[in-house]
Amino acid sequence: MIKRSVKQPVEALRWKDGRLEMLNQRVLPTRFEYLTFNSAIEVAEGIRSMVVRGAPIIGCTSAYGVALEAQRLRSTTPRKFASAMDKAFKVLAESRPTAMNLFWALKRMRALWKDTAWRTSGEIADVLLRAAHEMLAENFRINRSMGAFGATLLSNDMRIFTHCNAGALATAGHGTALGIIRSAVEVGKQISVIVGETRPFLQGARLTVWEMVQEKIPVTLITDNMTGYLMSRGEIDAVVVGADRVAANGDVANKIGTYMVAVLAKRHSIPFYVACPLSTIDLATPNGAAIPIEERNADEVTDFHEYQWVAKEVNVCYPAFDVTPADLVTALVTEKGIVEQPNSDRITKLFKR
Amino acid sequence: MIKRSVKQPVEALRWKDGRLEMLNQRVLPTRFEYLTFNSAIEVAEGIRSMVVRGAPIIGCTSAYGVALEAQRLRSTTPRKFASAMDKAFKVLAESRPTAMNLFWALKRMRALWKDTAWRTSGEIADVLLRAAHEMLAENFRINRSMGAFGATLLSNDMRIFTHCNAGALATAGHGTALGIIRSAVEVGKQISVIVGETRPFLQGARLTVWEMVQEKIPVTLITDNMTGYLMSRGEIDAVVVGADRVAANGDVANKIGTYMVAVLAKRHSIPFYVACPLSTIDLATPNGAAIPIEERNADEVTDFHEYQWVAKEVNVCYPAFDVTPADLVTALVTEKGIVEQPNSDRITKLFKR
Repeated sequence: MIKRSVKQPVEALRWKDGRLEMLNQRVLPTRFEYLTFNSAIEVAEGIRSMVVRGAPIIGCTSAYGVALEAQRLRSTTPRKFASAMDKAFKVLAESRPTAMNLFWALKRMRALWKDTAWRTSGEIADVLLRAAHEMLAENFRINRSMGAFGATLLSNDMRIFTHCNAGALATAGHGTALGIIRSAVEVGKQISVIVGETRPFLQGARLTVWEMVQEKIPVTLITDNMTGYLMSRGEIDAVVVGADRVAANGDVANKIGTYMVAVLAKRHSIPFYVACPLSTIDLATPNGAAIPIEERNADEVTDFHEYQWVAKEVNVCYPAFDVTPADLVTALVTEKGIVEQPNSDRITKLFKR
Repeated sequence: MIKRSVKQPVEALRWKDGRLEMLNQRVLPTRFEYLTFNSAIEVAEGIRSMVVRGAPIIGCTSAYGVALEAQRLRSTTPRKFASAMDKAFKVLAESRPTAMNLFWALKRMRALWKDTAWRTSGEIADVLLRAAHEMLAENFRINRSMGAFGATLLSNDMRIFTHCNAGALATAGHGTALGIIRSAVEVGKQISVIVGETRPFLQGARLTVWEMVQEKIPVTLITDNMTGYLMSRGEIDAVVVGADRVAANGDVANKIGTYMVAVLAKRHSIPFYVACPLSTIDLATPNGAAIPIEERNADEVTDFHEYQWVAKEVNVCYPAFDVTPADLVTALVTEKGIVEQPNSDRITKLFKR
């Protein structure tokens, strides 16, 4: 097996001239463009409208949203600073409800702010910006670590199914699910990827395919309803997906459709792996039923650009996530190691490792 | 319960001025237009390119393709007639590989031709056209009968999931799966429909939604990957789908994605009903593994109109159908009655009823 280096295709976020830039994931890969954000309100709107998406990078983006707002306020009085920062935290926290990393990152940034509240506004702003930079760098290191653990689960010549995009674009780089695939490729394993297109936002078709094509990792695109057929024909060896929130008992909220893949994997005795940093695990939420599931707007389902292909009088139901019960999960892959057959007890122990 | 009459929204096929017209299902519901066909070759291309789709109406369309060709040849010598008709049967048989009704209809038309081969070309042409008209009328009667049997399986206030379009557009009218829903509504049951959009051709989103909206039967659209989530929340009471071919043992080939729905229905103890006329049941094919599964072109998966949203270097896998094993089927609904837990023995007995 020949080791190869996998080039990082892209940065989802970058800090430039005191502003936050996000690669516009709404239009990839048709257009490659960065959009500039000047305030917490703008950043929250960028998260809400999915200019950036994927739980880990949503966490980092919200941290930058806090830092950006503090920069804007660096010459204000402590009182004005505190009031405006409270609003910034609030608007960022309301941007999307399911991704745990958003709340994890905001909690961390708020604690840092409170710890430094005796300093000047400018000093606090500097602390918060350094913290956002550090969170991004840390996320990348965590993904490398997760990748190394996860790569041990994949054998040479495996055909891996993944859903949505848990790649470089969803993180600070390397990716969670795609990070495991990249790490396996780096140590010389021949891995091919099958990805579901992930309706309605097409993260699989638009983003995961693009990442894999850039790195010449063989990739085959299918529509989401073809997964069962390929499994029934023995054409999928393992499933690796990311997560938006993992409950204390190991239930996994991830992009809508993940649950169906997990049920099919179980029927066909195909291992089902979930890549998630500890910041995605929510010990305060006992199980999947307690995870809030975002409902999004109908037009992503009924339209594409100017084409509406559905009769106007239709009702649309659009939950953006679903919950896969822990008993369908073969293993969680984290930066602290692998948790096989996850449950409350094993997850508690993971945090103590 | 108040009985209501369900208006037939549309004719998928019509014979007009000696030509065959097909409602263009490629562009519904955005445009409503009939295309005109003048020969068996044109009709075969209409079937192949899915101007018309759905196993029962594909059967009727191929019968009209034969009749149309015979009309064209009505002044030719018996020798020329026979040679050209042989070609017509061949091109029609090669239009699509999975739908059983295509082969069933062509076999019936060929037998009729052979029975009348001693007549003049013009007389044979008249016989074949009458047979095509009769096949269309018969298909409608069969759907009414299937609907009446199937309606007994549905209770008031049920929320029925259906996949793809097994409606008026897929048949001579009334529909197979949607025929059961229509018949239940006609006898006064409150039924609501949940339909998967059915990527990549969007038959659910474009066609089933349109049929239901026309008749004011409540309909909710979801993407195909949301079915499991709704089942896990108890929001689906039964599944009713059509079939493209049913093997002798009860295995069901239907639109890609059907198998995933059946596996999920089993997990959630939701009845899974398949509506199929006897002309869809293929006693010569022992089981699902022997059913040919059509592979279609990648551009339906990667593009919509002028938009291509997928990186060009991708591989695409596009099986148009999958196979649901008989043990996942709660019952087949046919024009001769209901076959619960279908198997070879019960299906053999069905044909003797």
